Amino acid sequence: MDKEKSRIALAVEYQGSRYKGFQKQKNTKETVQGFLENALSKVADQDVEIVCSGRTDAGVHAYNQIIHFDTSSLRDMKSWVKGGNALLPKDIRVLWAKEVPDSFHARFSAISRTYRYIIRNSLLPSALERDRALWVQEDLDLKAIRRASLYLKGEQDFTSFRSSSCQSKTPYRNIHLIRVFKKKELVAIEITANAFLLNMVRIIVGTLLEVGRRKIPAKQIKTILDQRDRNMAGKTSPAEGLYFIGAKYKRKFKLPSLLNSDI
Amino acid sequence: MDKEKSRIALAVEYQGSRYKGFQKQKNTKETVQGFLENALSKVADQDVEIVCSGRTDAGVHAYNQIIHFDTSSLRDMKSWVKGGNALLPKDIRVLWAKEVPDSFHARFSAISRTYRYIIRNSLLPSALERDRALWVQEDLDLKAIRRASLYLKGEQDFTSFRSSSCQSKTPYRNIHLIRVFKKKELVAIEITANAFLLNMVRIIVGTLLEVGRRKIPAKQIKTILDQRDRNMAGKTSPAEGLYFIGAKYKRKFKLPSLLNSDI
Repeated sequence: MDKEKSRIALAVEYQGSRYKGFQKQKNTKETVQGFLENALSKVADQDVEIVCSGRTDAGVHAYNQIIHFDTSSLRDMKSWVKGGNALLPKDIRVLWAKEVPDSFHARFSAISRTYRYIIRNSLLPSALERDRALWVQEDLDLKAIRRASLYLKGEQDFTSFRSSSCQSKTPYRNIHLIRVFKKKELVAIEITANAFLLNMVRIIVGTLLEVGRRKIPAKQIKTILDQRDRNMAGKTSPAEGLYFIGAKYKRKFKLPSLLNSDI
Repeated sequence: MDKEKSRIALAVEYQGSRYKGFQKQKNTKETVQGFLENALSKVADQDVEIVCSGRTDAGVHAYNQIIHFDTSSLRDMKSWVKGGNALLPKDIRVLWAKEVPDSFHARFSAISRTYRYIIRNSLLPSALERDRALWVQEDLDLKAIRRASLYLKGEQDFTSFRSSSCQSKTPYRNIHLIRVFKKKELVAIEITANAFLLNMVRIIVGTLLEVGRRKIPAKQIKTILDQRDRNMAGKTSPAEGLYFIGAKYKRKFKLPSLLNSDI
């Protein structure tokens, strides 16, 4: 008879620059999931398979990726964190671990996800920020970007803002909130939605940047949405500026709210 | 007859993580100077040799390293910046270029240098800050660090705070200013001096961290200075948290004050 299994949730921060994305793949070992499963399997002394809240693309970073796995290994929560971190590369860190009920599922229990895109809007290039923000030299019109972003809110057909290789059955997603804010030379575009289509944030940002550069008017976002045609939207902005900020779950799961304060 | 040479000053930002320090070495090509001379020589279409304001160790970063070189190639300032950046790795960026008189020397004309050491004083580890700050989990006593730092100011014999392999003829240096400040989870210790001995900032920070961790009292800094013995001071703190912030020159050289604003 199987030993009873318990379900563990973990929060993970990673710099995506050198990974081929979160999800495990046949042709490469360089995935965040691959390294996490390898480390956690060693801590558990048995195979561990993980499920995440949001599968990030190659080069995309995460501050608070939530994952879960089932295991019959009895370990205290500190062991998952410290043992995991001892076995992981330094650009992947486990922040906390918590035992959760079987009804918790990192992907299906998530009510919403939040991504943030960081643009360095500065005259000078930056060596230190090179793989953490997109450098835009032209002075961006943030008011126009804010006006444009309003058209994207609510439940809509985002066909124009999904990659042509997106596998989702429906092009409908519900954007709860878009915030555009600036801190010194950094501009952030933060989007919270029930879920996202493939490349949706990066195509939205690529299009909003055309508005910010005064190449298209803010209200053209409405037209692009209505056209339901990927070719009408802007370029997919590079992965280097994109951060998975976190996922929201029902309060009953009592996940820790521990966060690195610069998020 | 030689064509007339002109002297060019450049500001350079770099992330030092993957370099064996600034200075060229016989056994490795992985130095900041090596990459800069290679790129600038191609732009000049002739060999370029550079001099810097502060030779940083392996793994140390710079926001505003000032260099100069002499060349008979006639290039406008944009070409040095854009051409250089096109040929440099992305973790080294040229910020600006300016023609300067022959009396300017990046090393000898510098009145002072400023280094900043960044500590991430947080409960949680961070993947995204791993090679940009030293992680210290214990809550640091900043008041004690500030009190301790006062003993280091002024012209003094810093024998206790120099590497045993330091080649400088004199152990005297003059610290003009030490600032200790905090922003969210980041603690910065910033030191301005006429010049620095080998590993001086990192040994000072390693010792101030022992004060911050309440392992030695603030006033012990005075005793350590008086003992003139490297073994009395704390550990050399890791390179990953150290930034060369800039060098100060006489106003007559009119160097640009362009800076990335997050410095």
